Amino acid sequence: MRASDNAKSVILPGIKHPRDVAALDEGALPLLARELRNKILGSVSRTGGHLASSLGVVELTIALLRQFNPEYDKIIWDVGHQTYAYKILTGRADRFDTLRQFGGISGFPKPDESPYDHFGVGHASTSISAALGMVTAREMRDGGEHVVAVVGDGALTGGMIYEAMNHAGAINKRLIVILNDNGMSISKNVGALSYFMSRKLSSRWMRRLRREISDFLRSVPLVGEDMLSFARQSRKSFKIFFTPGILFEALNFDYLGPVDGHDLSKLQEAMSLARAAGSPIVLHVLTKKGKGYPLAESDPSNYHGVGRFNPLTGNVKAPNAGDEALSYTEVFSSALCDLAEKDERIIAITAAMPEGTGLNRFSARFPARFIDVGICEQHAVTYAAGLAAQGMKPVVALYSTFLQRAYDQVLHDVALQNLPVVFALDRAGLVGEDGPTHHGVFDMACLRPMPNMHILSPRGRRTLQNALTTALNLGRPVAVRYPRGQCPFFDPQPAFKPIPPGEGEFLRRGNAAAAVLAVGGTVHLAWEALDEIEKEGGRTLTLFDPIWVKPLPERQILEMAENHSVLLILEEHVLAGGFGSAVLELLSAHGRLNKCRVHCCGLPDVFVEHGPAGVLRAHWGLDKDGFKKFILAHTR
Amino acid sequence: MRASDNAKSVILPGIKHPRDVAALDEGALPLLARELRNKILGSVSRTGGHLASSLGVVELTIALLRQFNPEYDKIIWDVGHQTYAYKILTGRADRFDTLRQFGGISGFPKPDESPYDHFGVGHASTSISAALGMVTAREMRDGGEHVVAVVGDGALTGGMIYEAMNHAGAINKRLIVILNDNGMSISKNVGALSYFMSRKLSSRWMRRLRREISDFLRSVPLVGEDMLSFARQSRKSFKIFFTPGILFEALNFDYLGPVDGHDLSKLQEAMSLARAAGSPIVLHVLTKKGKGYPLAESDPSNYHGVGRFNPLTGNVKAPNAGDEALSYTEVFSSALCDLAEKDERIIAITAAMPEGTGLNRFSARFPARFIDVGICEQHAVTYAAGLAAQGMKPVVALYSTFLQRAYDQVLHDVALQNLPVVFALDRAGLVGEDGPTHHGVFDMACLRPMPNMHILSPRGRRTLQNALTTALNLGRPVAVRYPRGQCPFFDPQPAFKPIPPGEGEFLRRGNAAAAVLAVGGTVHLAWEALDEIEKEGGRTLTLFDPIWVKPLPERQILEMAENHSVLLILEEHVLAGGFGSAVLELLSAHGRLNKCRVHCCGLPDVFVEHGPAGVLRAHWGLDKDGFKKFILAHTR
Repeated sequence: MRASDNAKSVILPGIKHPRDVAALDEGALPLLARELRNKILGSVSRTGGHLASSLGVVELTIALLRQFNPEYDKIIWDVGHQTYAYKILTGRADRFDTLRQFGGISGFPKPDESPYDHFGVGHASTSISAALGMVTAREMRDGGEHVVAVVGDGALTGGMIYEAMNHAGAINKRLIVILNDNGMSISKNVGALSYFMSRKLSSRWMRRLRREISDFLRSVPLVGEDMLSFARQSRKSFKIFFTPGILFEALNFDYLGPVDGHDLSKLQEAMSLARAAGSPIVLHVLTKKGKGYPLAESDPSNYHGVGRFNPLTGNVKAPNAGDEALSYTEVFSSALCDLAEKDERIIAITAAMPEGTGLNRFSARFPARFIDVGICEQHAVTYAAGLAAQGMKPVVALYSTFLQRAYDQVLHDVALQNLPVVFALDRAGLVGEDGPTHHGVFDMACLRPMPNMHILSPRGRRTLQNALTTALNLGRPVAVRYPRGQCPFFDPQPAFKPIPPGEGEFLRRGNAAAAVLAVGGTVHLAWEALDEIEKEGGRTLTLFDPIWVKPLPERQILEMAENHSVLLILEEHVLAGGFGSAVLELLSAHGRLNKCRVHCCGLPDVFVEHGPAGVLRAHWGLDKDGFKKFILAHTR
Repeated sequence: MRASDNAKSVILPGIKHPRDVAALDEGALPLLARELRNKILGSVSRTGGHLASSLGVVELTIALLRQFNPEYDKIIWDVGHQTYAYKILTGRADRFDTLRQFGGISGFPKPDESPYDHFGVGHASTSISAALGMVTAREMRDGGEHVVAVVGDGALTGGMIYEAMNHAGAINKRLIVILNDNGMSISKNVGALSYFMSRKLSSRWMRRLRREISDFLRSVPLVGEDMLSFARQSRKSFKIFFTPGILFEALNFDYLGPVDGHDLSKLQEAMSLARAAGSPIVLHVLTKKGKGYPLAESDPSNYHGVGRFNPLTGNVKAPNAGDEALSYTEVFSSALCDLAEKDERIIAITAAMPEGTGLNRFSARFPARFIDVGICEQHAVTYAAGLAAQGMKPVVALYSTFLQRAYDQVLHDVALQNLPVVFALDRAGLVGEDGPTHHGVFDMACLRPMPNMHILSPRGRRTLQNALTTALNLGRPVAVRYPRGQCPFFDPQPAFKPIPPGEGEFLRRGNAAAAVLAVGGTVHLAWEALDEIEKEGGRTLTLFDPIWVKPLPERQILEMAENHSVLLILEEHVLAGGFGSAVLELLSAHGRLNKCRVHCCGLPDVFVEHGPAGVLRAHWGLDKDGFKKFILAHTR
């Protein structure tokens, strides 16, 4: 397959509406699949995006649009990063090259964007709950539509899926769950379920297995009892072996499959059977991530979410200037390894994100102390609490946005018991192209109200190393939050030196009346803005990096409020409940607000759209120029 | 059984240490069980508490302490309200009459309280995650101890349990899960699982079933294939019928049971088998809630959590003066029914709390529009989002503390999509005797930063009715939060009248320079405090009820800041990120902090202990006297 084939599409240009897919001749479908793959590959190589999972469900998407009518039936994609073919076939082919761009179409289903996106998604394991809500609504108005949830096997590790299936089994109304089993979640599948899920039973293999079991059973004289004791005694119970749907059956779902997810006629046949079911049914479909693009097929993890790349060679495009600098993720990853070298109690935990969090490095070096629990942040956090209760030093590395899944576990299991769990929160701030479901702009507001919690927001390489060192030696719950992207190296203090709790750092001492307090990733932008202001107007403003969001550097902030007539807070976070809010609370408690004005620059009360992070920052006034403007506006 | 038997205990007084239980003669155990029940009944009838579930596990607790050594082995009770016998037998008999009292022992396991409480619990479904963390820690240091999680069947509806079991099955190390199956969660069990969980297979019944199945199998010529198709076609698959542990086996646990949970010798025998297992095992134990106290046995829901009562008759003690007033829960419950009468789209959802949330009334009147999903707040919220996406008006009624479980679902599935889901948050504020795991003092800080979210905090009967009316007609995500306890009726405006968004109410217009802004349940206390201040000093202060936490009554607050030199904020909520914080943000954004001081009275940055709510309020300065003192201190 070659991206240049894109130009030659003959079928795709005729698909203006999902019903055009249904109207195609059966014989045209393989070509449509090829054209879709070409279009996805060509476009994503220019825009970046979730390549491998979208390539894997091309046939599944075509079959869905032939067996179901999205103008009437509801189709809910779990996570939703696999919906590129769906977007192209449901009227968004013309805009597909704007994917994930500012003002362009989203990388995830979004009801605002299309009437065929029936539910907004982004985080894993929500689809069956939403689908079941739609089933209940349908039953209440005696509707006839089908409700279909398409769930990847990775999302099966999330407890919400079970909550929803357990409820669906009890309600017992028509609901179709398509299990898109590609034998891996974003990284690799984990957990006991994967033992039988990943077995990839071909129908030939299945037939052989059945025959063998049947032979075995026939050879046993007292069939029933012995079969039972055989089943009871066998660790990997034979029932599980020949009925991969056993788990679903236990939850009162019918089970159909497994079906080859790249065989269009088998897929359609199976979907037509599923349509006929009068109660909840799981259709188990086997797909290959990256299907049709050999580079992605052989290395789906690396082609899960890609930047721009050359579709012929798979090489990523030349990085922009400065890209060679280390990312925050890399600095964290390397620092954690260095610290773990000296302390055997350090254990690293990820929720299916070893690459994204940089823990793959740790896992290679300390395999016995690395734990991937699957996509289940709730369990990850309480599991870490259990480890900490027994003297270990667990580090739970998550994206800021995914910690939201474990809010109660952080509060109720870690903070309340004051257990020394370290949360390494990557992607704190705007994440860019993944958009509103993934921006990490709520974490300070989440964590700050929790008693016992400590929060560090390092600004660069050394402070991140030092923050992690501090966190691992504090013996208390600590979150270290840091943004996506390059980690500036302009904090040349000694490495791996603990930072005293509640002590920030003055980076510039100003002679003017205003002090700038910049949090985390905004510090270097504030520095540059202040540089320009100094050059242009000769005014030197104080720049303070609190480093600690909690406990606040109270003494230093109160002192600044004493010596300055205005404090300017910069944070890449919602204003409500954020760092600025913490400063206001402090000054109010000490009756210091009358003498000193406080102005906060952060995100207003809206969900921020998707787009390159730099573009979003500029748009929302959170880049160097925006900060400069803000500072100048409040210091005239 | 009679409570007065308490005095006659002969064995219990000799139990000073858990090893004393292990040392008892087998023959003494039934008497010990009886004495424990007497003690629990006698004491709980005076203190209130979780009676039925604690009576149900008396034998289970005795057996645990004979088969495991809590000085060495780790025992983690899920939820933990069933641990009264455990507390009595592990050195807390003398203090047992201080249960749930201020300064007394907690109603839940609490590591601070006893070395035998190995993990703090309160919210459901956390135990296996924590236990697995302890298992991992044990393996890393080659320890030999057992780790035991005791989980009720109700907690099985929570997705965390699956997340943890899936992970445990993969790790495949020694871990004992005791499934305490009393056929009901707090209210009644729900979900597909309950079909086979609640079947209460006696061993005689089991034998008969096996024989029948075995007869059936023998009668079939081509045994293997036909059995398979039988299994496949049968809706309630026969595999599930004769192996109630199938779900656990699918997750790679061994399964043992079911065992009679009131038969001490069978229990000990089964536990001893479980001890010998080299990998994860579930021991399924059948118990009866309220066992040994006929009144509780026949009505366990009403004896789940009780106030003081007469142990002989079961009658609750005479209410204190004023108790005859309606509670917030009752006002909500009745208002929702009235509104649902006129709007068929209103659907009520609870997570296993129909009594606690008052939805039992709704369920009796509108059974088809009432949905109990089980203990799974995550699913409840996204399920509601699915309903709302299809034009329904779901009302998710939860305790404030349990909404924490669904933080991400509220943000990512409801707020981001701007779906009209109504959250009825009961128990917002201090809940009293249940203590720190259950206080609802974080909800405003949680919800306020979420774009699109609306928050109402009504102060009494009419404002609650009006808030609910508003919420159901707003077409946006709305939370209505209200406290536990009596709902004052001093807001005599018309009922069921929508409240304009962002418009609060001036209850007193003062002639002095200070204005008091009181949130929700604090309004009537503020009113009383201001009454006293007026009588004592002749000063009338402004009293403002914002009603809306979000959107803030901006115009009115800015006006107050203009006309008053000090604003005093009262809220029963943590100060960090709370209502006061929102006011500070508003005034900062408008540059109004210089002219007007703001002082906030709420909870400091600590976890508040358990005790009667009135005592806690007095202790933390959040009662009438505390508010009066605060107001006077800042208005001299």
